[in-house]
Amino acid sequence: MIEQTTFTISTAGPGLYEFTREVANWVRGSGLLTLFIRHTSASLLIQENADPEVRRDLQAYFHRLVPPTNDPRMSYLAHTYEGPDDMPGHIKAALLPVSLSIPVTDGAMALGTWQGIYVFEHRATPHRRQVAAHLSS
Amino acid sequence: MIEQTTFTISTAGPGLYEFTREVANWVRGSGLLTLFIRHTSASLLIQENADPEVRRDLQAYFHRLVPPTNDPRMSYLAHTYEGPDDMPGHIKAALLPVSLSIPVTDGAMALGTWQGIYVFEHRATPHRRQVAAHLSS
Amino acid sequence: MIEQTTFTISTAGPGLYEFTREVANWVRGSGLLTLFIRHTSASLLIQENADPEVRRDLQAYFHRLVPPTNDPRMSYLAHTYEGPDDMPGHIKAALLPVSLSIPVTDGAMALGTWQGIYVFEHRATPHRRQVAAHLSS
Repeated sequence: MIEQTTFTISTAGPGLYEFTREVANWVRGSGLLTLFIRHTSASLLIQENADPEVRRDLQAYFHRLVPPTNDPRMSYLAHTYEGPDDMPGHIKAALLPVSLSIPVTDGAMALGTWQGIYVFEHRATPHRRQVAAHLSS
Repeated sequence: MIEQTTFTISTAGPGLYEFTREVANWVRGSGLLTLFIRHTSASLLIQENADPEVRRDLQAYFHRLVPPTNDPRMSYLAHTYEGPDDMPGHIKAALLPVSLSIPVTDGAMALGTWQGIYVFEHRATPHRRQVAAHLSS
Repeated sequence: MIEQTTFTISTAGPGLYEFTREVANWVRGSGLLTLFIRHTSASLLIQENADPEVRRDLQAYFHRLVPPTNDPRMSYLAHTYEGPDDMPGHIKAALLPVSLSIPVTDGAMALGTWQGIYVFEHRATPHRRQVAAHLSS
């Protein structure tokens, strides 16, 4: 049996936005859950849901790994017309997951104790991000 | 119901090779598409299909993130016998997706407007890359 | 039809731990295998299974890409209370796969000749890592 839906996550600048509960409320039975983010400048991420410092540190690390294009080190990049966070958003979307698959057993995802499901927003302006969900059982 | 096939993508040096149309022509019905690349020096990637500068910038970024092993900064790497793009190819294959899963509804993949499906080739010499495809519905 | 199990991989410090054979012995028929690691400081990885230097080089590269937090370059990170490999473990877990999907045909995974399945441990102390497995056929 197949069930499909779309989760919409509103974002307000770079960072991690949790939507574990929305997904947990939707899955049921036993099967395989797949999430797919329909964008090229935001990502999906499974990460620690306990200490908020982990999320801030993750964002800080990726900001340094892929600096904005007004940083002189990034002057070799050409695709900048939507602003200094445009091409870095695409690069981060390449480095981080676009799809995730999680086994589901008796209505519960196989997430570990500390794992939450996040949208990782890479753009500065607010966005509404669509995550396609598929449950096969 | 299960359907499986293999897509073969010919590459001629580092860069992104789109095969969205081949996949779109193959999927049908509603279900879950999974792609798996059978190599350790090339990757799958969902990326922007509009501006070719995005693809060139992506390649330029990953070339700098993982320089060839004849760059003095990479002298700590040991596995170099197939040339300076050998070990960087493996590293890029670790950083970028080996498998992708995309929900399919009424014959259409849940790709966003700007998303295309690519093989990201990491090696300098021409290759024929095999992508195993699975559709469960 | 759905089958599920959990693989437990014991690790003893950073590096790649292969468990291809355990997975190969478990899959059967034709379908889709999905693996999901239930941790935020270890990853799944498909990589070359021939030359052990590739695994050592991969570990060396990621150690340089995400240095321990007692390295002055990482002083901007806040989440350090489990030690200098704590936050780098989370960052590597973001950069590397948490889930993998592999088509299975007549009992064989679609792995390429040189592809093995690994747990990539990011922490210094020994751990028992759980990988949830799902086979739909």
